[in-house]
Amino acid sequence: MKNFYSNDWYEENEPIFSAYADDLINGKNVYEVIRTYNRIPFAVKKHFERLKKSCSMMQIPISFTCKELFSIIKEGMKINCDELCGEFRIKIILFTGGTEKDLFVRFEHLKNISKNLYELGVNIGISPIIKPSGYIVPPYLKVPGQSWNIRTKKLLKERYDLLLLNEKGNVCEGTYSNVFLVKGNKIITPDILSGVLSGITRENMISLIKSMELGLQVRPVKSLELYEASEIFLTHTSAGIVPVRKIGEKVLIEDFTDNITRLLIDNFEGFIMADETNWVGV
Amino acid sequence: MKNFYSNDWYEENEPIFSAYADDLINGKNVYEVIRTYNRIPFAVKKHFERLKKSCSMMQIPISFTCKELFSIIKEGMKINCDELCGEFRIKIILFTGGTEKDLFVRFEHLKNISKNLYELGVNIGISPIIKPSGYIVPPYLKVPGQSWNIRTKKLLKERYDLLLLNEKGNVCEGTYSNVFLVKGNKIITPDILSGVLSGITRENMISLIKSMELGLQVRPVKSLELYEASEIFLTHTSAGIVPVRKIGEKVLIEDFTDNITRLLIDNFEGFIMADETNWVGV
Amino acid sequence: MKNFYSNDWYEENEPIFSAYADDLINGKNVYEVIRTYNRIPFAVKKHFERLKKSCSMMQIPISFTCKELFSIIKEGMKINCDELCGEFRIKIILFTGGTEKDLFVRFEHLKNISKNLYELGVNIGISPIIKPSGYIVPPYLKVPGQSWNIRTKKLLKERYDLLLLNEKGNVCEGTYSNVFLVKGNKIITPDILSGVLSGITRENMISLIKSMELGLQVRPVKSLELYEASEIFLTHTSAGIVPVRKIGEKVLIEDFTDNITRLLIDNFEGFIMADETNWVGV
Amino acid sequence: MKNFYSNDWYEENEPIFSAYADDLINGKNVYEVIRTYNRIPFAVKKHFERLKKSCSMMQIPISFTCKELFSIIKEGMKINCDELCGEFRIKIILFTGGTEKDLFVRFEHLKNISKNLYELGVNIGISPIIKPSGYIVPPYLKVPGQSWNIRTKKLLKERYDLLLLNEKGNVCEGTYSNVFLVKGNKIITPDILSGVLSGITRENMISLIKSMELGLQVRPVKSLELYEASEIFLTHTSAGIVPVRKIGEKVLIEDFTDNITRLLIDNFEGFIMADETNWVGV
Repeated sequence: MKNFYSNDWYEENEPIFSAYADDLINGKNVYEVIRTYNRIPFAVKKHFERLKKSCSMMQIPISFTCKELFSIIKEGMKINCDELCGEFRIKIILFTGGTEKDLFVRFEHLKNISKNLYELGVNIGISPIIKPSGYIVPPYLKVPGQSWNIRTKKLLKERYDLLLLNEKGNVCEGTYSNVFLVKGNKIITPDILSGVLSGITRENMISLIKSMELGLQVRPVKSLELYEASEIFLTHTSAGIVPVRKIGEKVLIEDFTDNITRLLIDNFEGFIMADETNWVGV
Repeated sequence: MKNFYSNDWYEENEPIFSAYADDLINGKNVYEVIRTYNRIPFAVKKHFERLKKSCSMMQIPISFTCKELFSIIKEGMKINCDELCGEFRIKIILFTGGTEKDLFVRFEHLKNISKNLYELGVNIGISPIIKPSGYIVPPYLKVPGQSWNIRTKKLLKERYDLLLLNEKGNVCEGTYSNVFLVKGNKIITPDILSGVLSGITRENMISLIKSMELGLQVRPVKSLELYEASEIFLTHTSAGIVPVRKIGEKVLIEDFTDNITRLLIDNFEGFIMADETNWVGV
Repeated sequence: MKNFYSNDWYEENEPIFSAYADDLINGKNVYEVIRTYNRIPFAVKKHFERLKKSCSMMQIPISFTCKELFSIIKEGMKINCDELCGEFRIKIILFTGGTEKDLFVRFEHLKNISKNLYELGVNIGISPIIKPSGYIVPPYLKVPGQSWNIRTKKLLKERYDLLLLNEKGNVCEGTYSNVFLVKGNKIITPDILSGVLSGITRENMISLIKSMELGLQVRPVKSLELYEASEIFLTHTSAGIVPVRKIGEKVLIEDFTDNITRLLIDNFEGFIMADETNWVGV
Repeated sequence: MKNFYSNDWYEENEPIFSAYADDLINGKNVYEVIRTYNRIPFAVKKHFERLKKSCSMMQIPISFTCKELFSIIKEGMKINCDELCGEFRIKIILFTGGTEKDLFVRFEHLKNISKNLYELGVNIGISPIIKPSGYIVPPYLKVPGQSWNIRTKKLLKERYDLLLLNEKGNVCEGTYSNVFLVKGNKIITPDILSGVLSGITRENMISLIKSMELGLQVRPVKSLELYEASEIFLTHTSAGIVPVRKIGEKVLIEDFTDNITRLLIDNFEGFIMADETNWVGV
């Protein structure tokens, strides 16, 4: 794959960054990760808006438009795509200058997700490492070097993801996923101030739940509620909705054929495809 | 300057890192910054011990010795030093592999410190941005991407440094300095669990204060105490001890010729030069 | 003075409560303190509403009306007042039964306030004892036995009051007063969630400031702001507005003849007298 | 029962406290509750030491000895005991004066505990109300009017007790009991700084566990661990050890005949009877 940096395209293995690239070395940058569906970049406008939010918190004066970013992405896809190519995972990093010269766009193949994931569910756990809530560290920041995530990833072992709790003992999110609980006839997900990055897939899921008129609660979630839930599922960009079979030693559900998670999985892709806010500017 | 990466030496402007150097791009690494005195690397053993502590928290299995690191540093100094060269600032980054192949050592000239700094003192302020205390994020981690520091640095303006408070409103440290207060006949500095990186210069200062039998308190420091202090000074590697003239709108002291800070400045360099723990392995 | 308990009037020194009065002994009750102006009870309706709020948090089912409470107060004043009597301080305690039988109303003379208080101001300090913020203990509760207040009162010495900070290091209130700061052209007072009992005098002061179109901020107040304020004043029922001369070692102001605090003192009594919400039901 | 107050003995229903007993009315006092075994007061010395700790925090200058308190208790038991009388529950309240004149000692019959309690276990739950941890409010204080306890008691319904969590989401204690968990081969109980009143029965239980060389951990306990425990039991003065059958909707154990809780129940009374520290001064 060729990648874009500072208005140039570089070969896959060509070194790009020097020893004095301090914004990179010191983690002084913000980023987004975009995927494609049918080789069309998904929710670019939403990712761009979130990038601007991170920039604003970090005082990075972003000086290009969503349309200009889109052009670069499309150019990269054209360069990197052959007849057989599948979906892309596109990482966008913006350094503190905030101009197109400070922009790095990297292309990868999106990994295929096994159908088993959706049919059998995954095992998750609780991380022993605390993530600060949004009262301490602003949750909107999508920046590198979040030590709680890096440290938790080292503990994953055979688990799909580990959920982090904040300093109040409330649920935040996984290291790369958001979490939803089904409890009674409510679907519950932690609010932003609990210390949750507002994932695009999380937002789409919230819209889907509202559109289906299922009961939704976005609020602080006590860790104990994880053991009181009848269903739990994760959301993240590359896999969409992932049902949870087991949390810690507790088996949640054996059969995913007839429950709320299944209902949402069956409706999710159709919903995001039809929702025009995900395709603005395409 | 030439720099070391993955067992090779690279020219100053030669690109080193590729688009897929994920440990760098995602901030998955730990680092140290070492300075020289008289072109001898200072407190290498202490920096190495702190690097090992960071590694342990991040589960990076460090697989080389302090002696091996010292050899690389000395080799780099030999390569980069000409007759006229002054002191060095040496940045060491270790990526998650933990071997010498995952080691990056970068050389820079240490900036000269104006004598005025010590005679006139500096202006500092309080950052509006919270740093999590050591009860939430382990303070020993020296990792890139600490958003509270990056965001505070953007607010420095003409101030020398801004002090961060933790979520309890207690004093932590500046963005690149530790802080000490003189109050009555006590010298006070925040404890590690307040959310303080245990700077090498901070440790040397603590040793100096003890050796001079001045009263020392290492404990949580309420932010209000900053306004009750008769003297404040900062410590950091490149400048040693820096007296504070003004905090916010409050002028602390006009005359630095006869106070505790001056006494410590006068004794500091002699002390660290004579203290063998700073020169182990040289 | 005669006092009311469980539908009876008791002589001043007559014992009332038995060894098994558990609601009293265990602090299971809520209370209010009302003063009179010109021997008319002040803001009875507001005190009653706040009593109901406390009752609701403690699940005490209050079963009498404001009018019924008013009758008892008026009856007590008639019984206890002779020609020479001044203003009253009336304490209302409601035990967990919530009926008139569970009601205790006590009468005292309101102490005279020296004019010096308003002209010279008072000295205050910061309590070393933490008050939990409203995120931990609901601030609306007016209940006996708040250990942070009792412990702080023991430390008053010659100070008029000590301000308590919450667990975040933000300003709450004094042990029997609310606090306001003047900073630039703003008047600032801590918000309820900082851990502030919403005093009736505080509410009247907020209304007065708004009516005079002075800039008002009701928000978390960092403890450091106490040292950045140009004026500070306290409010509480018996004295109204009390200017602060000195906080800790810092003298705020020598001359109270021409500042914001003086302006508010000059307008306060007129304002509350004219504001009909303070005299509902009289 | 006759009760002691201010160096006098009062009849059961005789009013004792006047309308101006401010230390009582404002909750300005500390207390202890002592029980008897075989009509001998239990652990009087330990209760007295804890009373002194509360006094020290509240700056109450206690001016009588344990022996003098013991004499009053014994005199009260002699006065109140007839041939048929069972065990006593003795409440000691000390007002802020700290002398014997400020001492109130109340006598009651200790309620009989049904054997079913130990054989069937009890149902407990989690309180939705937060108790501040020991970092915010000192846990050693045994004072009236702790709103978190009073409010939680209102929610008990058919449950034996509800466990309070602190502001970090960690387990503290019940409204009148301490809690222990069995997890793997460890017995775990929250540490004091979690916000735990150090109950005398809790301390005796800790001694018993140590003497039996069972693995003990006294440390912060995450609320989630309540759902991971294989056994849970409560301790409190009047009932000793109480096994938990059900927490929330989770049934812990059906059969109490062969587990750790049973082992401890079988050994507890023998242990405390034999342990001389419980009978000092008798």
